[in-house]
Amino acid sequence: MDSFTQRVLDGDELAAARLMRLTDDRIKGYDAYMRNIWRHTGNAHVIGITGAPGAGKSTLVDALIYEYRSKGKTVGVVAIDPSSPFSGGAILGDRIRMSGHSNDSGVFIRSVATRGHLGGLSVSAMDIAAIMDAMGKDAVIIETVGVGQDEIEVAAVADSCVVVTVPGMGDDIQAIKAGILEIADIFVVNKADRDGVERTVKDLETMLSFTPRHRYNWTPPIIKTTASEKSGIDTLYERLEDHRSFAMSALKAEKQQARLLHAANGIIKERVFTELFHSQKLSEAIKNERNDPYTAVEKIWEQCIISTGN
Amino acid sequence: MDSFTQRVLDGDELAAARLMRLTDDRIKGYDAYMRNIWRHTGNAHVIGITGAPGAGKSTLVDALIYEYRSKGKTVGVVAIDPSSPFSGGAILGDRIRMSGHSNDSGVFIRSVATRGHLGGLSVSAMDIAAIMDAMGKDAVIIETVGVGQDEIEVAAVADSCVVVTVPGMGDDIQAIKAGILEIADIFVVNKADRDGVERTVKDLETMLSFTPRHRYNWTPPIIKTTASEKSGIDTLYERLEDHRSFAMSALKAEKQQARLLHAANGIIKERVFTELFHSQKLSEAIKNERNDPYTAVEKIWEQCIISTGN
Repeated sequence: MDSFTQRVLDGDELAAARLMRLTDDRIKGYDAYMRNIWRHTGNAHVIGITGAPGAGKSTLVDALIYEYRSKGKTVGVVAIDPSSPFSGGAILGDRIRMSGHSNDSGVFIRSVATRGHLGGLSVSAMDIAAIMDAMGKDAVIIETVGVGQDEIEVAAVADSCVVVTVPGMGDDIQAIKAGILEIADIFVVNKADRDGVERTVKDLETMLSFTPRHRYNWTPPIIKTTASEKSGIDTLYERLEDHRSFAMSALKAEKQQARLLHAANGIIKERVFTELFHSQKLSEAIKNERNDPYTAVEKIWEQCIISTGN
Repeated sequence: MDSFTQRVLDGDELAAARLMRLTDDRIKGYDAYMRNIWRHTGNAHVIGITGAPGAGKSTLVDALIYEYRSKGKTVGVVAIDPSSPFSGGAILGDRIRMSGHSNDSGVFIRSVATRGHLGGLSVSAMDIAAIMDAMGKDAVIIETVGVGQDEIEVAAVADSCVVVTVPGMGDDIQAIKAGILEIADIFVVNKADRDGVERTVKDLETMLSFTPRHRYNWTPPIIKTTASEKSGIDTLYERLEDHRSFAMSALKAEKQQARLLHAANGIIKERVFTELFHSQKLSEAIKNERNDPYTAVEKIWEQCIISTGN
């Protein structure tokens, strides 16, 4: 074990921040450290928090951090930011809201830009969650933005998946929930001081009653919160602890394996991408095959992948 | 050339529908046909239509179909449906709205479920667009749902990219637009009979003025439509024709190459997925490497990928 990795495992914030930077930017050599880091993961309670834009996820995560800290627990947060594919920067200003924790060494918050060309939860996001886990954080929260791919993936890799909604969301959002109902371990109806909160709870209950029985015999609770006033957060904390106890016995090994597989999947995609698409080989193969991508892939599968594998 | 593929190239609707089914379901042997199909693509005007849920994209596409048909042009539509990852079915009921065209042989509409595990515009969606192109449709519309990954990809593979918005969208949607401003060739403000339409147009103009000059020296027009009343659709058609003339001279080869590369990329991902992740090799490698996904990938990269490449 090199001394740098050891410092991360000992919970050294500066070392961890540096490794996260190396990892997020894929600076040459980062993977040598990550090999050791991953072997020390599996102890944190990994919590996925997801839901439509505008549901108040950042505020909820902020309030949840205070709740965990008040119980003496340490928290890591990986916030997945949608980023402009062209300008490259993260675009969500509300990240700054969490800066109230910046002097608390028990809290580690890190934003990760989504990687447009590979899709889904990036390896880099998984790596950063792994660093937080390995450095000893009690809870690691992965917060995703938007609907679709990320939500499904965060449910697969989190021990506990929280889906956040708000009163009076439109029909479109309701439609999208069809897939979400099946992946949530806990529902939060945030902004519960708004009109229509009971209706939304009732709608969720109805939809849940029509949904195939939840995986693993867990009935997802529906919790009302007003995160901006820290209301309902204590209940959310308790239900998360309930689910942690449940998940730790029934699912922990399975979820850890899912995280490892997801990371490995991403590593392979990255490797295929860097070694194949950044080369001119694929374009040339397509031209040689008179615009037939199937035959082009067939040809380079042998020529290119095998040679880069050596 | 086998006679089945020849029938598709001749525009035979039944043959095309059958090939789309084979292709969408990845039925063994579909790729033998697709190899020929792809070599006959590149003639259609490929139009991407994207925007947030609730913007009325389906109604707009419906109205656009009538407009194209009134000009004597044939149209294919590939509608990307978000699907529940567990139940497998497409969930957008509004697909049915387009059924008014079901007796018009100049219109071919096909919904494709998103594939959760691979992310983005699936190869299958690209394949179906390719079939519509190869069978001689004048315009092929790819309609995506939601924000994020799909939008970026549809802009990359379409000759012309239309981004649909509505008056009074919230701040969250505005934030997400940061990336969208740079990929749109044409903006549509739909539901223009609502309050606040001028404000939205003005906002878009302001945002565009702060955006790095549009690729390729094209200034994206902003068009007001009320698709449910077919209002403004003639203007949209004209701007699409303008952009087609522009794109055909400046971009056609580049866009066709982007489609081929995107398809090839997806084919490789599918192949990696089927040959690697459906095997037990990756899980075993991770266990053997004491939970280190990096070393596990390193090991199977040589053992597994090379052997399946033979």
